[in-house]
Amino acid sequence: MTPIDRPEPASGLARTPEPPYWAVIFSTRRNHQPGDQFDATDQRMMALAAQQPGYLGVETAFRDIGITVSYWADEASIAAWKRNADHAFAQYEGRTRWYDAYELRVARVERAHSFVREP
Amino acid sequence: MTPIDRPEPASGLARTPEPPYWAVIFSTRRNHQPGDQFDATDQRMMALAAQQPGYLGVETAFRDIGITVSYWADEASIAAWKRNADHAFAQYEGRTRWYDAYELRVARVERAHSFVREP
Repeated sequence: MTPIDRPEPASGLARTPEPPYWAVIFSTRRNHQPGDQFDATDQRMMALAAQQPGYLGVETAFRDIGITVSYWADEASIAAWKRNADHAFAQYEGRTRWYDAYELRVARVERAHSFVREP
Repeated sequence: MTPIDRPEPASGLARTPEPPYWAVIFSTRRNHQPGDQFDATDQRMMALAAQQPGYLGVETAFRDIGITVSYWADEASIAAWKRNADHAFAQYEGRTRWYDAYELRVARVERAHSFVREP
């Protein structure tokens, strides 16, 4: 797989522009099955999302639940990514194998504030 | 500390009402220091937030970064929670001790979709 030049800094926090922009908050409870290809597909989807028009960045964390927030320039970009064929298949796999439950929320970011500690 | 009756189901996913409502997406990179009281304060703030007017739920996960998304009925509820004195002190501690960097985004949830696997 060709390495993708990801816009995220090494910190794992997404560098997003001034609002307004859009966020897709995807919160999941996994159903772990051996050989379910989750990790490989997840990485492939993250790389593929980063190539889509309107993609602004992603942040992801897992503990008891997984939370992945992807950021987008507008609703049309989100709709196009949802319809992407590879992504649509991953969505199907998610419902049939990977997730016991999830919540997907589409939100318009109205305000944002960054903090970086002074060295 | 008195146990708080949290509205989240055991799954860790927040049960939120039909949109619109609001989300505060708080993405953090920790600066771990021994004895920094982070965990105790974090738990206390989660319990305190759950008691505020307009609170709808919270989802949280940590790996390389932390992501905590809290859900609120309206912007006024978010503003009131921000001004809460205990919370304001925790915010100060966050900037002086706990976080190397964070992004805080306030977003209006426009659409949401739930999935729960059939038994």
